[in-house]
Amino acid sequence: MIKVGIVGGTGYTGVELLRLLVQHPGVDVVAITSRGDAGTPVATMFPSLRGRVHLKFEDPASANLKTCDVVFFATPNGVAMQQAPELLDAGVRVIDLAADFRITDVAEWEKWYGMRHASPEWVAKAVYGLPEVNRATIRDARLVANPGCYPTAVQLGFMPLVECGFVDLDHLIADAKSGVSGAGRKAEVSSLFSEASDNFKAYGVPGHRHLPEIRQGLSRMAGDAVALTFVPHLTPLIRGIHATLYAQVKVDADFQSLYEKRYASEAFVDVMPAKSHPETRSVRAANLCRIAVHRPQGGDTLVILSVIDNLVKGAAGQAVQNMNIMFGLSETDGLWQLPVLP
Amino acid sequence: MIKVGIVGGTGYTGVELLRLLVQHPGVDVVAITSRGDAGTPVATMFPSLRGRVHLKFEDPASANLKTCDVVFFATPNGVAMQQAPELLDAGVRVIDLAADFRITDVAEWEKWYGMRHASPEWVAKAVYGLPEVNRATIRDARLVANPGCYPTAVQLGFMPLVECGFVDLDHLIADAKSGVSGAGRKAEVSSLFSEASDNFKAYGVPGHRHLPEIRQGLSRMAGDAVALTFVPHLTPLIRGIHATLYAQVKVDADFQSLYEKRYASEAFVDVMPAKSHPETRSVRAANLCRIAVHRPQGGDTLVILSVIDNLVKGAAGQAVQNMNIMFGLSETDGLWQLPVLP
Amino acid sequence: MIKVGIVGGTGYTGVELLRLLVQHPGVDVVAITSRGDAGTPVATMFPSLRGRVHLKFEDPASANLKTCDVVFFATPNGVAMQQAPELLDAGVRVIDLAADFRITDVAEWEKWYGMRHASPEWVAKAVYGLPEVNRATIRDARLVANPGCYPTAVQLGFMPLVECGFVDLDHLIADAKSGVSGAGRKAEVSSLFSEASDNFKAYGVPGHRHLPEIRQGLSRMAGDAVALTFVPHLTPLIRGIHATLYAQVKVDADFQSLYEKRYASEAFVDVMPAKSHPETRSVRAANLCRIAVHRPQGGDTLVILSVIDNLVKGAAGQAVQNMNIMFGLSETDGLWQLPVLP
Amino acid sequence: MIKVGIVGGTGYTGVELLRLLVQHPGVDVVAITSRGDAGTPVATMFPSLRGRVHLKFEDPASANLKTCDVVFFATPNGVAMQQAPELLDAGVRVIDLAADFRITDVAEWEKWYGMRHASPEWVAKAVYGLPEVNRATIRDARLVANPGCYPTAVQLGFMPLVECGFVDLDHLIADAKSGVSGAGRKAEVSSLFSEASDNFKAYGVPGHRHLPEIRQGLSRMAGDAVALTFVPHLTPLIRGIHATLYAQVKVDADFQSLYEKRYASEAFVDVMPAKSHPETRSVRAANLCRIAVHRPQGGDTLVILSVIDNLVKGAAGQAVQNMNIMFGLSETDGLWQLPVLP
Repeated sequence: MIKVGIVGGTGYTGVELLRLLVQHPGVDVVAITSRGDAGTPVATMFPSLRGRVHLKFEDPASANLKTCDVVFFATPNGVAMQQAPELLDAGVRVIDLAADFRITDVAEWEKWYGMRHASPEWVAKAVYGLPEVNRATIRDARLVANPGCYPTAVQLGFMPLVECGFVDLDHLIADAKSGVSGAGRKAEVSSLFSEASDNFKAYGVPGHRHLPEIRQGLSRMAGDAVALTFVPHLTPLIRGIHATLYAQVKVDADFQSLYEKRYASEAFVDVMPAKSHPETRSVRAANLCRIAVHRPQGGDTLVILSVIDNLVKGAAGQAVQNMNIMFGLSETDGLWQLPVLP
Repeated sequence: MIKVGIVGGTGYTGVELLRLLVQHPGVDVVAITSRGDAGTPVATMFPSLRGRVHLKFEDPASANLKTCDVVFFATPNGVAMQQAPELLDAGVRVIDLAADFRITDVAEWEKWYGMRHASPEWVAKAVYGLPEVNRATIRDARLVANPGCYPTAVQLGFMPLVECGFVDLDHLIADAKSGVSGAGRKAEVSSLFSEASDNFKAYGVPGHRHLPEIRQGLSRMAGDAVALTFVPHLTPLIRGIHATLYAQVKVDADFQSLYEKRYASEAFVDVMPAKSHPETRSVRAANLCRIAVHRPQGGDTLVILSVIDNLVKGAAGQAVQNMNIMFGLSETDGLWQLPVLP
Repeated sequence: MIKVGIVGGTGYTGVELLRLLVQHPGVDVVAITSRGDAGTPVATMFPSLRGRVHLKFEDPASANLKTCDVVFFATPNGVAMQQAPELLDAGVRVIDLAADFRITDVAEWEKWYGMRHASPEWVAKAVYGLPEVNRATIRDARLVANPGCYPTAVQLGFMPLVECGFVDLDHLIADAKSGVSGAGRKAEVSSLFSEASDNFKAYGVPGHRHLPEIRQGLSRMAGDAVALTFVPHLTPLIRGIHATLYAQVKVDADFQSLYEKRYASEAFVDVMPAKSHPETRSVRAANLCRIAVHRPQGGDTLVILSVIDNLVKGAAGQAVQNMNIMFGLSETDGLWQLPVLP
Repeated sequence: MIKVGIVGGTGYTGVELLRLLVQHPGVDVVAITSRGDAGTPVATMFPSLRGRVHLKFEDPASANLKTCDVVFFATPNGVAMQQAPELLDAGVRVIDLAADFRITDVAEWEKWYGMRHASPEWVAKAVYGLPEVNRATIRDARLVANPGCYPTAVQLGFMPLVECGFVDLDHLIADAKSGVSGAGRKAEVSSLFSEASDNFKAYGVPGHRHLPEIRQGLSRMAGDAVALTFVPHLTPLIRGIHATLYAQVKVDADFQSLYEKRYASEAFVDVMPAKSHPETRSVRAANLCRIAVHRPQGGDTLVILSVIDNLVKGAAGQAVQNMNIMFGLSETDGLWQLPVLP
């Protein structure tokens, strides 16, 4: 059994990690920490876990994380870069669900995240944990930077196009819509039910932190700089991201077939039949990305639809997928739950 | 492997049965029928099942249900009473998720359901499938009448009180609130998003079909007639029932302890600590009933809160639990998923 | 034109007061205060008011409220009792939308609200602003205590029964459900979209602050103490309260007719035809209470359904109604908007 | 008083027309028809209108619509083209809220709507009722084709850009999101609460009926053909459309100022400050379009955000605005309600 620790377990990615790891056949969760809620039984904060999770939140200072095989950081940005190096030096492998190690260009990271990076040396060693791109390097990674939710949906949606280079890489557009759990379990007015319900809005149009992450990923796939307009929106769902992607065709091709081939051996990416419209609920609570390829009226604009559950394939599920790869397990272990519909 | 058939798989209880049975380690779903959608792949109608369910809906006439060990009826009221007897006579065991066999008094059933009963002889042989009451008889049942959603939440909530007789059995009140999936996957104006969202209402106050079912169950527990006021409401959730139950104390007792003892060995009933407020989402997508016991200000009125997921413990999950009992499996087989929260 | 001031305009009752008062033909809103947001244009915080409200939030210390004819307090509990007396002494009339002056028994108030009352002398002079009960005294009131949202729905629902005394006053039950805006525009985890959406729960069952307010009101109507079990619930709507009320009949009567007569001349109370089920959306954004009277199966338990919009008849609308009465305007001035449906 | 008739009043645009017209100071609604519900009081179907609307639905055959000054058709596509000509010939002015007269090219209309047009001669005489474009011709129109909901949001959003021609007119993109009331009050599975709630999806990507309407409008503004990719989505709101529009800059300009000037004298179009993010709820229940102009990171892609309430500025409100213009009333008469927020 893999001994697992979780740092920062009181947010939505924390409780989702617990849901997945507790049901994982090869894992033993031995510690979960929370500075503010140390001593509280996990099942008191999250009654959905009553009778199944008997852990208490521990103070990060006293928790014995160094005996773990792997530690997940489900903390706000800026925490893992402070605390992970000590664990890494002790031989513990780390999967960071926050953004600390996602952007290779440290100056760029510091600009978007508004803080000084505490361990740039580990940025260089970290592997970006998008298995469909980096499976081989994830296997041996000591530190995995788990991708953001929008970046997962957008990169998986654009990947086959960007890899082949058949579209205009200077004018990619990602119009993305996220459920409210993407904002986390923080007490903020803008995430209140009475603000976010029965309402729809864009946000961060001048610039969103996931933009450099997506741009970095797509540029690597393309082997060249890409230019992307990224517009995130808030939609009244709890879970789910729907990315609607636009690209102008430069070289004609059978794009449906291109996608099907690219993802033929991926367990967690489903290329739907032509003209499909994937719904976010079709992946609710499951580690899946469903994609549909459209070319309306045979014009020169492709429309790619890509959906994930932001807490699963966009966070905790992908982190577990990375863990499975790192420890040589079957990639689907503990991740084979069917989506919950309706 | 138990060979399972499903009659009427295009509704919400049908797709939920599939979700649970496909992930059940001891089951092989061999046939699923739908008169209107015969020939359609199940995963075309329910994309959440893509890649995991390869069955097509079959016409009930041609489906080879008689080779099944057990057949679930997830059909509208009035179908199973027509079709189940032939299967039963062929030795197939049947679990009916509709109301056809729930009410022992056939005349009473006919009054509430507005049709003539087609097989009263099987009503007499059917076992009411509330495992917490009838586990022993379910084991050998040929035909199980799976309880309704409201009746499950209300009976489990009242049971310890009614069994002991410490409350006024002439003035029980059940104020119950249901998510909209309880109305099924039928195209009706009243279930439209624009009607049911951002809205709350009572319905069926003059009389609801689940009233005689609950009254029958409580009367059996009490060994005497009980009088119940039952008011169902529609609340804008997809899944979930919250029953708020009121009873007047006649004999004093430690009611918290009474509940804890009654349900101590039940895997799927969770008596929460005193003064708890169970939330419907704490059982979302799981086969669980959580109950809290209150006696506000120490007065003579008890308030019992009981929550279930209407599609799981209130329908498909309970049906699988009954199947597990009937076939000698562990009662929790295939039903041990954690609730999905948030 | 009546010169109006608003203290504490950044919450939901504040913005709702603005919506109603700006459209009121006899009113001029001259000042609105907010300690934290002084200097911010109101329409920056609430873009729904762009182009129509040109006020800025002012600091309460510098706002010239004493020149107003009437000042509304849309502040948290405990503020009006500090600040209103100075205005009252200056001859300004005051309508407090919080709870400071609702409970006549100051010791009882202090117990439930957990603070020492700052102006018990004004509690004695305040008029409880439920027009259907106290219209005559509201007319000359200097200080009106605007009722709470639950108390409005529950008192209007029970009033005809309690006044006539035909029911058991020792066992009244109010099972009430509120939309999330009732919790205010405060950044709290429990009011987040991802917590409150697709979820239903009771809260405050051991004791809620509106209980003593309702009990006081019903006892006055009855001319005797009444005993009430009050269970509030949170339901995923923005606006709306649905109270389901239970009472045991002691003296038979035509209860439908009793309600119709009691409210025949009330502009804002609609007694629906027998067997109706009022929906919260049928009063959305309007100053209305709709009531339906049921006696299921002719038994001895009455079921009364009462719905309001908690922000209108349960707060800002009722406050404007009180203002209309205090200043001799037509009671419906500025309050005649039709509900918004769907 | 203008005598108004409504044909087809049982849908959402019908009840919204009633809400607006009943509160309009210059209008008298004299008849409302419904084939299926003739004889039913309007307030029985829509309890929100109880006490305020005393009309019954009349059979279209017997309703005396010819004495009306203006008749609104709130009917499914294909009805007004059958029934309006007779009224028009009798001198009644007509505003059609459906699509029958929106597309000048009858062959194109027949292709998209799948039926033969019954009165192509009236198509030629109809005026497209987007006041911000056609105010002068609307004034004298006998027949107004009220724009679709998506077309209103998209055209108002693109208009200043397309008129000036500073962007690439061959690659416009409109990514639009609509609340569920846009699908009407029809009993369809896809509009059920349990299908549409907690879910997000695109639909009609291969081709949606509003595409030719938008293309026609934009082409007229541009004086040349434009090419548009239009992707509609369904989002779990009742009311609201959010259009996110993308255009590539060809000629540099101060686009914020361009928009502000274009709409400076429009009462119902609000150009927000630069970098704003309009929310659908900021126009809920009001006849408003709010627009924000973005140029992320100073690149060559403009992002325009445009929001309306689909039932008001996208349907009934715009129809009343057209009526006001046709009858020489102030354009804001009866349309000056503030949005309902929260």
